[in-house]
Amino acid sequence: MIAEARATAGGTARAAEDVVPVRRRGEALESAIYGAALQQLTTDGYAGLTMEGVAAAAQTGKAALYRRWSSKEELVMDALRASLPPAGPAPDTGGLRGDLLELVTRLRTAMFSEPGAAVRAIMGEIDHQRAHAFLALVLERVVEPTTALIAEVLERGAARGEVRPGAVTPMVTDVVPALMLYRIKMCGGGPVELDPAAIVDEVLLPIVRPAGP
Amino acid sequence: MIAEARATAGGTARAAEDVVPVRRRGEALESAIYGAALQQLTTDGYAGLTMEGVAAAAQTGKAALYRRWSSKEELVMDALRASLPPAGPAPDTGGLRGDLLELVTRLRTAMFSEPGAAVRAIMGEIDHQRAHAFLALVLERVVEPTTALIAEVLERGAARGEVRPGAVTPMVTDVVPALMLYRIKMCGGGPVELDPAAIVDEVLLPIVRPAGP
Repeated sequence: MIAEARATAGGTARAAEDVVPVRRRGEALESAIYGAALQQLTTDGYAGLTMEGVAAAAQTGKAALYRRWSSKEELVMDALRASLPPAGPAPDTGGLRGDLLELVTRLRTAMFSEPGAAVRAIMGEIDHQRAHAFLALVLERVVEPTTALIAEVLERGAARGEVRPGAVTPMVTDVVPALMLYRIKMCGGGPVELDPAAIVDEVLLPIVRPAGP
Repeated sequence: MIAEARATAGGTARAAEDVVPVRRRGEALESAIYGAALQQLTTDGYAGLTMEGVAAAAQTGKAALYRRWSSKEELVMDALRASLPPAGPAPDTGGLRGDLLELVTRLRTAMFSEPGAAVRAIMGEIDHQRAHAFLALVLERVVEPTTALIAEVLERGAARGEVRPGAVTPMVTDVVPALMLYRIKMCGGGPVELDPAAIVDEVLLPIVRPAGP
C-alpha cells in the first residue's frame, strides 16, 4: 500500500512539470504508477525509464515512488508482476490444428499487449549483469507457462493420434516463441509478418505429424 | 586510413590511465580499435561502450578515435563491417542431414565468436530509435546470408527428393536462427543447450521430410 503525502487543494505548490498531483491511495495510485512504468518501458526502453518520468506520467511526485521502491529495478519488477496476466487454460477445440491456431493467435496478442511489449523491451537489455532478476521473472511468468501450454496442446494431440510419438521435445516447444520474438526483432519496429496459420501449417504441424501410413 | 599523432618516446605525457600509446598507422591501429570495440560490446553492451574505453583498450588516445569517427555509433558500425566474416559457401556433404548438421554447427560457432557476440549485444538494444542503422547492417551481413545458406541446402535436398515440395518457406528458413537466438537469450549468459543434432533431427528434418510413401 502506498499513499500520497502531497495535498492537491488550495495553495499547494505545483510540480515543476506543472503536474497536478491527484489524491489517490493504495491500489489506484499503484495502478497508475505501474501503467506509467509499462508505457515508459515500451516507448523508451529500460535504459530510458526514469523514476521522474514515471512520477510525472502517473501525476504523482518522485517522493511517492521512492517511499515504496528504492530503485527503478524494483519498481519495474513490481509493475511486471502486477501486469502480466496468468496464462489461462490451454485451448481445447477438439482438434490439433484448431488448438494450435488459437494458441499461436493468443500468444501473438500477448506479445503485442502493453505488458508483452514491456517484457520484450526489458529482454532486449537482459544480456548484462543487472538483468538476471528480470530473466527469472520472465521465465517464471511468461516462458514456462507458454511452453507448458504448447506441450499440453501437443500432448492432447498425441493422445488423439495427431502427433507422432516422441515428437514433442523441449526444442520443439521452443519453436513458436522463438519464431515470434525473432520476427518481431528483425522488423525493428516495422510491420511484422506473424501469420498464425503460417506458423502452424508450415512449421508446427509438419514437425509433429505422424510418419506416413 | 588513420594515423596516431601522439609520440611514444621520451618526455611524452602518459594518458591518465597510464596507457602507453603505441605508434601504429593505418590498418594495424584500425584493427586494434575494432578489436577493442568488439570486446567492449561483448562485455558491457552498446550502452556501456565509450570512446574513452575503446581508446584505452586499444592503447591509443581518444583524439585518434574522434579524428575518424564522430560518434560511437559510427565506430561500432565500421567495427562490425570490418569484422563480420563472409558467409562462405553452403556445406555440400552429399546428403541433407549432413549438410544441415554442418550448417547449424557453423552458425552456432559464428554466434559465439566475438563478432557474433557483439552483434547479439547490439541486437539486444536495437528496439529503440537509434538502432535502425544497425539492424540494416545485421540484416544485410548476417541474417540474409544465413537465410540464403539454409534455403540453398534445403533446395539441394529437394532436388534429391529429401525435401517435400513446397516445404521451404520464409517461416521455415527462420526457424534455425530464431531457435538459436531464443535459447541464448533465455539462458541469460549461462550454459546454452544448442545441440545441432537436436535442432536438425527434432525440428528441421521433420518439417521438410517428404510425406509418407
